[in-house]
This record gives sequence, structure tokens and C-alpha cells, in this order.
Amino acid sequence: MITGKNYIGADLSSDSTVSFKTFNPLLNIENKTTFFEASDSEIQKATKLAHDAFRVFKLVSAKQRSEFLIQISEELKSISDDIINIYCSETGLPEGRCKGELGRTINQLLSFATLLKEGSYQEVSIDTPLPERKPMPKPDLRKMLMPIGPVLVFGASNFPLAYSTAGGDTASALAAGCPVILKSHPMHAGTGEVVSSAIIRAAKKTNMPNGVFSNLNSKGIEVGVKLVNNSYVKAVGFTGSLKGGRAIYDLASQRSHPIPVFAEMGSVNPVLIFPKKLQKEYSELAIQYAKSITVGSGQFCTNPGIIISFKSDYFDLFINKLVQEIQEISPSCMLHPNIYNSYNLGLQKIKKNKNVSELTSYSDKYENNFPRHVISRVSAEKFIEDKCLQHEIFGPCSLIITCQDEEEILKVIESLDGQLTGTILAQDHDTFLSQQIIDTFELKVGRIIFNGVPTGVEVCSSMTHGGPYPASTDSRFTAVGINSIKRWLRPVSYQDFPQSLLPDELKNDNPLNINRIIDGVVTREGDSHFENT
Amino acid sequence: MITGKNYIGADLSSDSTVSFKTFNPLLNIENKTTFFEASDSEIQKATKLAHDAFRVFKLVSAKQRSEFLIQISEELKSISDDIINIYCSETGLPEGRCKGELGRTINQLLSFATLLKEGSYQEVSIDTPLPERKPMPKPDLRKMLMPIGPVLVFGASNFPLAYSTAGGDTASALAAGCPVILKSHPMHAGTGEVVSSAIIRAAKKTNMPNGVFSNLNSKGIEVGVKLVNNSYVKAVGFTGSLKGGRAIYDLASQRSHPIPVFAEMGSVNPVLIFPKKLQKEYSELAIQYAKSITVGSGQFCTNPGIIISFKSDYFDLFINKLVQEIQEISPSCMLHPNIYNSYNLGLQKIKKNKNVSELTSYSDKYENNFPRHVISRVSAEKFIEDKCLQHEIFGPCSLIITCQDEEEILKVIESLDGQLTGTILAQDHDTFLSQQIIDTFELKVGRIIFNGVPTGVEVCSSMTHGGPYPASTDSRFTAVGINSIKRWLRPVSYQDFPQSLLPDELKNDNPLNINRIIDGVVTREGDSHFENT
Repeated sequence: MITGKNYIGADLSSDSTVSFKTFNPLLNIENKTTFFEASDSEIQKATKLAHDAFRVFKLVSAKQRSEFLIQISEELKSISDDIINIYCSETGLPEGRCKGELGRTINQLLSFATLLKEGSYQEVSIDTPLPERKPMPKPDLRKMLMPIGPVLVFGASNFPLAYSTAGGDTASALAAGCPVILKSHPMHAGTGEVVSSAIIRAAKKTNMPNGVFSNLNSKGIEVGVKLVNNSYVKAVGFTGSLKGGRAIYDLASQRSHPIPVFAEMGSVNPVLIFPKKLQKEYSELAIQYAKSITVGSGQFCTNPGIIISFKSDYFDLFINKLVQEIQEISPSCMLHPNIYNSYNLGLQKIKKNKNVSELTSYSDKYENNFPRHVISRVSAEKFIEDKCLQHEIFGPCSLIITCQDEEEILKVIESLDGQLTGTILAQDHDTFLSQQIIDTFELKVGRIIFNGVPTGVEVCSSMTHGGPYPASTDSRFTAVGINSIKRWLRPVSYQDFPQSLLPDELKNDNPLNINRIIDGVVTREGDSHFENT
Repeated sequence: MITGKNYIGADLSSDSTVSFKTFNPLLNIENKTTFFEASDSEIQKATKLAHDAFRVFKLVSAKQRSEFLIQISEELKSISDDIINIYCSETGLPEGRCKGELGRTINQLLSFATLLKEGSYQEVSIDTPLPERKPMPKPDLRKMLMPIGPVLVFGASNFPLAYSTAGGDTASALAAGCPVILKSHPMHAGTGEVVSSAIIRAAKKTNMPNGVFSNLNSKGIEVGVKLVNNSYVKAVGFTGSLKGGRAIYDLASQRSHPIPVFAEMGSVNPVLIFPKKLQKEYSELAIQYAKSITVGSGQFCTNPGIIISFKSDYFDLFINKLVQEIQEISPSCMLHPNIYNSYNLGLQKIKKNKNVSELTSYSDKYENNFPRHVISRVSAEKFIEDKCLQHEIFGPCSLIITCQDEEEILKVIESLDGQLTGTILAQDHDTFLSQQIIDTFELKVGRIIFNGVPTGVEVCSSMTHGGPYPASTDSRFTAVGINSIKRWLRPVSYQDFPQSLLPDELKNDNPLNINRIIDGVVTREGDSHFENT
């Protein structure tokens, strides 16, 4: 049963009179449950609980945290039917998508559970002393990564599971040893509550401290603003719009004690197509990209928003085929009327731009929340001139950019802002695919794909889901994959500490049997190493 | 010969009419050379050169960058007499200190040279594909860390070599593959120019692109402000005051495209002394700490600014001995009249505070720039009440805090801001040394020292020189040790790339013979691994 209340630690609570409902975009009606926005007192309670829980949670062993994550995944599995029901009613997305996203969410939790058992994420390093060194003895120094403190996670509109309540930010923060305060996304507050109940049950079953997780509802931005400014909050994870992410970044960096924000924001995910590839496969590529642009109704951070190539007959054939294909794909429901309306506003702006021509055309009317699939076209020159054409239009559309020559393609790439992804469609030795193009492209993106589509973000250790601003607020981190844990860890060094007072990770005998770097060499050696020194 | 000009890449340049001189604090007179502040056009040239050089430098192999760093160290050695002369005349520090700092600077460069040859800093990771996986094939994903772009480094007042021109920030940035724009510290512009000449010669001899290093002079803050706002600058390294570091952080985070700043700022480096230790060694500890407080005339980021213990007869004996010892140590020259004056202003503020009593007393007058060594005392209660007592007073002074009991010592620790270091002086099983005290202390610091002094920052991979704000602007990084390179690196992933287009680090055959994580396992395997999959 969904209560509409906030989880303040393990307690359901609804102090506030501010309430809201979620929306079923397929039926175009409000859902029934009334959700209560977190009050100031609930915000204060949840953050204080997280602060207190941190003192206990940071001492919980990696093995126990691993069991906590596994238990969350078990709890999610056990209520998958409930999750699917509420998920579909709050998003308009099909059951298959929900199942896929739930599977991914579970896999993310389990990948961190595995990481915790393995131990190398803590980057343990030991430098043995040289007491006789002149002019100064070298001390015994040991370093490991420690959790940064309570992490505020904002649920994402477009991934109610994988980037929300028990999604990547939460999984990585809990894995790091950081309590999580979840600012639930108002569009899927019910899904958030159901998933939160699974986390709370898992925390109880594995004896985690109360306050290790809280889930706070909100209608507008006020709750989020208060949370970012709360002194108990030590870091923030966000996935969403540039506007939202930048606002959070600005608040966090203006605090008396600034905190790190990892915001994964807008991206138009440029695709470069080279002549030989087009000549051979223009039709297959058009079919592939019509699918990639429209999958999930275009509501992916990695949606291919601009497609760049040289003026040529084959590019024209590709474009014609793409326009034809994308018009034949049935529109699919967007997450919410707000997103549908924003999409249409974005399209209207493009339409008013006299340098851009829409290539798709529709005579019939569409139902509410079912967006048109739109392909437009602009010259490279006009694209470079007008930075507004780089703004993400969140939905199933793409802008075609035609270049005259290699020099112009380089200029287009140079003009691009930071991106989550960049894609190259080419034969290995394609005309004009110079090292310079690859090098320039690489400066702009977090992930560079060869002959594929940017949509679909594999969860693995080699994944980078981030990129130069505005793709993210800090290109040095990733939001997806096990390395995303690094966002919530800080190094602490122990100098000349007695064995009995060191954390287990740093003790001579290596009781956790983890890989450590001792005097520059990776080893699992324990006491024997230190006897020899 | 010192010209007083800026290095715009390899070219000496002086456009501006704004000029200044450095100061010899020992002689209390200006030095002779006139330095010219970098003009707007010189700033623009240097940053554009760095931007262009980056495109070449990022393709320079790690081995070649390693040779560049080694060559810098050779050049520095070959002009060590020149460096010592100008260093001493611009700082008032003794020759021995200069030699020690030069040695450390050279060792830092060489430690990065070694790191580059070894290769694991790039965190290369390869996930092999599963083309048959259902419902979606798993792509081939390969990830490595890449340089972030041109780095702006601010020279520090108190370490003209080790934290300035060719210091840790520069060495780590060049090692990462990032060109450096050095904003030279006005107090030691001559030392900066001499060291810069060594870097420029090394760059030429090892065929590095022009613009890989520039050195810009400035009198006031304007040049720094313009540089932080310059769009070619992609990251900033700073060591200095909280005021300066915060101003840079604020500018950088308010840019249209924010950039990461690592500012290592103020710290009072609390020292906790426990009863049993005091009882046994109060006299030795007092002697040790009188030295630590006064070394380098107290001008170290890790100077022990507050000393905390329980009210006891032995603590009184320690305090008396410390006061006696510190008064017997001859004062040593501070870096500059500005620093000397700031120190005296800080002391005056403390003196006006009716809750603080100065324990040292001086009847004689001192020469200019030779500071008094001052020990003051305050109760824990008053210390907790007054946040101003936590402000760093940069110089040879320390504040004694007396606590009534364990509860009060915990309250004092809880009240502390972020610190570079915290020190515990105790016997292994000392009275009141609870795990709770260690855990609480650890939350506040980057490095925690047992039975030692915080001054002296060992350059090794287990060192953390940073800490929670305001010790640094980002507790997730360190300014000292090989891990400081992480500040200037960002991950980039390559999906389904052909072998011929991959960087060498990511190619199947592992031509660089570096450690890589392939499907979760650390290995130097090359082709053989991929044949089996």
C-alpha cells in the first residue's frame, strides 16, 4: 500500500499540509494517492538522522554493507509486481521497459556488492617507514578512502528506478558508507515510496542504523533547495536538466562550506557519419537511428540529438530514409504532460528559426502526451553561429547538420559544448576520418562510440557516464559503473599509528585479505611483508 | 640574469607598465629587479598557447612526459646556486631550508616521472564484449584517464619551490598531460623566473610544444582573476589563505562553464595530548612542539595552531615548559613584511579577546620581520563559543585549550572545522583515548598523526595533503604525493573502437606493457588475453 508519506529513516511521516498527486500520462489523469511534501521539521529530522547514522554506518564493514545492498536487491525482486504497477501508472512506460530497468537497478546494486567484497576501491596504500633516513626519518604512512558523509540524491524523471530511489547514485553512496537522503521525483513519488520501503526493510534486516536512508517527497523546488543548503549534507548526486543541475551546483558552491555536486545534465550526443560508411549502409543506419532517436520516447540523456555529415547524395538518401522511418514509428507516451509540453515548446523554437527546416511532416493530430518524431536540418555555418541550437530538446527529435568539408566538420566539433557521448559512424579507413577529428571529438565527450548508437549505457567498470560541462558538473567522475563510488570517497592518511588503532584495511596482517599497494607494489601480503622490512 | 619579464611560452615578454619589486625581509629593503605584471594581451597569448599546446601535449607519450620532468629536475640542479641566491634574498629563509626545499621539489618531479613509466595512474580498464548476450549484446568498452586541459597554478608564498613554479601542482599537471600557466607569487617573482627558465629549457630540450608552460607575474589580484575566468583554463591549483582560495573557488564556480579548483587553504592542525603520555614525556613533548611551532617561522600549512588536553598538573608542567622553550628559541625572519604584519594583527585580535590569556611575555623589542613566538590559553568552553579562535594565525604561535573531561574534548573536536592534519599524542592504551575520539577526529582531517608533529609532509603515495573544507575546497583529492595527479584527469570511454584508432593504452596488444584491469582482473596480458575470449 502506498501511503503518500515520507520515510524519515524507518518512520513514515506526513507533517505538512502541502500535498500533490502523480499523473498517469497514458490515461491523461491524476493518480489517486495524495503525497505529502516533506516539512522543514521532517527535513531536519532526516538529515540529523543521516548525520548520526553516518557515525555508525562508516564503521560497518564493507562485507556487511555488501550484504545490505544484496538484501535491497532481494527486497526489490520480491515486490517487483508492485513496482511494475505503480511505475507504469506514473510514467506511461511499458511493462517491458520497467522490467528491464528494474533488472538494471538490481544489477547495479549487486555490482557494488561485489566491489565491496573485493576491496580495491578503497585504494589502500602503505608506505613503510625508514627510521634511519637522513636528514629526516621517513614516517610510517597508510592511506585509504573513507566515506564523505551523508549524500543527497535527487531522483531523475526519466529513470524512476535506475537513476532514482535505489538507483546508481544511491547504490554507490551506500556502498561507499554514506547514508542517503533521497529527494524523490514528484512525477513518480509512488514508485519512490515503494522502492524506499524495500530499502528500509533491507536496512532493518541487515541491522543498518536508522537514518541510513530517508525518502522525502516534494512538489516544487523548495525541499531540494533546503536539503542542498543543509549542513549535515556532505555531497549531492543529481540526474536531470541543465537548469536544475546548475541551480543545485550554484547553491552547493555558495554554501559557507561548499560540498561536491555531481550533476549529470543535458547533452545532445553528436553523431558523425563518414562518407564510405554512408555509401555502404545509409539505409541500415537510418533504420538504426530512427529507433535510437525514438526509444523511450526520446527521453534518454544519451539520445542522439544532432547528426553531422558531409553534403553528399548518400547523406541525402540517409536523411530521406531516416525521415521516412521515424514517421512510420508509432509515437509512444511521454513521462508527463510537463515533459510533453516542454518538448513541444522546444520544437516550436526550432520551427521559428528561419535557418532550420523541419523535414518530417504530419497531417494528423496526436493524442495528449504522444509526441511527434521530428527531424530538422540546418547548415553547419548556421549551427555554429547559433548556440541555442545546441540546447537539448528532451524528446524524440534530432537535428541534421550538413558540412561542406573536413574543415567545417572540425569547426562544428570545436563549437560543441561538453557531451555525455559522441558517436562516429565510419569504416576503419573512412575518407576524412582523421586522427584530428577523433582527438577533437574526444575533448568534448565522456564516451566515444564507434559504429553504434549512444542510447544504452552499459553498467560496467569501463563505462564513463559524465563528461565536460554541461554534460556534468565535474568531468573527473562518472555516474554509471563501479567507479561512480569515487564521488563519495575521500582519502585519509594515518601516520605512525599503532596497529591496534588502525582500521582493519590498514593493519599489517591484512585481516580483510584485500589488495593493497605496499611501497608501490600491489599485494595481498600481510604480516610476512612487514617482518621483512 | 633575472629580467623581470613574463614567460609567454618560451618568450620573455613585458607589455605592461605595471611593475613591482620583491623584498628582502632580512635586510628589510626592496630587491633591485623590476618585474612587469602580465598584460591582458600576455594573459590571452599565454592561455591560447596553452590551449594549442594541449592538443599536442596530450598526444605526447607518458614516457616522453616522464623525460620532460626528469629534464626539469636536471635543469634545476644545474642552476641550484642561482636559485639559492634569489630564493634567500626574496624570503629571508636560510640556505639550508632552500636546499631542502629544492631537493623535495626535484624528488616530486622524479616521483611523477616514475609514476608515468609505471602507468597504473591512467586506471586503464577494458570490458570485453558479449555479442551473444540477451536481450542486448554487451559492447566492447575501454576506459582510461585523460588530461583535463590547461591548468592554472598559483605559486604559494611559503614554499617558493615545492608549492610554486615547478612544485607539486605543476609537476602533477605536467605529468597528467596538462599545460601549466603559472601565476607567480609576487613575493618571490625572481625565484619564479629562474625556476621557469629551467622548465622552459627542459621543454625545448625534450621537444615539448611551446606553451606547455608559461609564467605570469602580478602585483595584485587582477591577473589571477582574469586567469581564473579565462575560458582556455580548465582547472586550478592553489595553496594559500582561506580568503584567497575561497575567492578563486567562487570565481571558478560562477563561470558559465565551471572548472574544478583544488585550493589547499588554512588549517590550525589540532593536537590532542592524552594524560599518560603527558605524565611520562611532558618535557620532551614541550621541546618537540616548541620546535614544530617555530620551524620555518611558523609559516607552514601544517603548523600546530591549537593544542588540546585535559586540565591536569602534568598539562600545566607541559605548558610551562613549552612557554619557556619557545621563548628561548631565537625568532627567525618571516617571508615578507605583509606576512609579519598579518601575524601581528592576528596576535592583537587574540590579545583583545578577554577569554584568552597570553602565556609568553617579552620585554625586549624585536627587529622588523622577526616575530615573537606566542603561546596563549583558552578554556574549552570559550573556544567552542567563539569560532574566530579557529582562524589560522599564520606564524609561530599556538593556542592551548584546556578541557574538563572526555565529553568536553569530544565537544571541542566536534566544533572544529576541516583540517589538513590532526595529531594524537598518547600511549597505545592511554586514558580517555577512545575509539570515539579517533573516529570523530578522523572526520575532520586529511591526515592523522600518532605521536609526532604535523609539520613535515612526506612526499609519498600514502600522503593526504588536503582535508574537509576549509582545509581544502575538495576533500576527495590531495595536493601532495603521486595521487595529486588525479586532480587533473578525467575518464574517457571508447565503445566498440577498432584497434587502429584506439590509444596505445587501450590496444589489445598492450604495447606500453602497463597494468590494466581486464574484465575486473589486473593484468599486463596483451593479445593472448583477447585471443582466448
